[in-house]
Amino acid sequence: MKGVLDEPRVLSSTTLKGDVVRNGAGEKLGKIEEIMIDLPTGRVGYAVLSVGGFLGVGDKLFAIPWEALALDTESHEFVLDVDRKVLENAPGFDKNDWPDFADRTWGAGIYGYYGYKPYWQ
Amino acid sequence: MKGVLDEPRVLSSTTLKGDVVRNGAGEKLGKIEEIMIDLPTGRVGYAVLSVGGFLGVGDKLFAIPWEALALDTESHEFVLDVDRKVLENAPGFDKNDWPDFADRTWGAGIYGYYGYKPYWQ
Repeated sequence: MKGVLDEPRVLSSTTLKGDVVRNGAGEKLGKIEEIMIDLPTGRVGYAVLSVGGFLGVGDKLFAIPWEALALDTESHEFVLDVDRKVLENAPGFDKNDWPDFADRTWGAGIYGYYGYKPYWQ
Repeated sequence: MKGVLDEPRVLSSTTLKGDVVRNGAGEKLGKIEEIMIDLPTGRVGYAVLSVGGFLGVGDKLFAIPWEALALDTESHEFVLDVDRKVLENAPGFDKNDWPDFADRTWGAGIYGYYGYKPYWQ
């Protein structure tokens, strides 16, 4: 996570679900659909961003590296500061067809796409 | 987390909620009520165990260090291998009166009680 204003913050996964996600320009991208937990390491592996029919992508879900998100604690909203083009071309998935989040090859692709090193490396 | 049979496993926080927690002897202690996320570090800080009126403690919640839990992937149940006396005397809380999980002094007490080093140290 890139930053929070008043660290440390410890919140329930239930609280985080549904939080709005905006881009760096303040435009709403979607909301937090799910928090994916890597059990052996006890890390948040990914946040799942749900996007409702914008950018011509229709309803779609995106796995986002946790490090790519920042929390604005005043508004209780997340900021995903990526270019619009990046999200347009991002590897998304349908809500009825989730990938296997434990697949490290798939995961390395996600982390690489957003410019982050996989958390398990 | 002490162990999972088929690593790596990455599951949604929603999937984990409600999972049964047993002790080392296989006795049911309760279930996973919540997963607490440490936002800046992206770590699971605590699992919250709900215990329904056993051991004479009544309905109560317990913050558990993630490292103290193991997942039995066959049964999809968690094992918290602590002595019954440990849980009887553990610092619990009421469902209407949650502690501030970001309080490091409180947290160090929890980790120390179960014999683990706080994840932020």
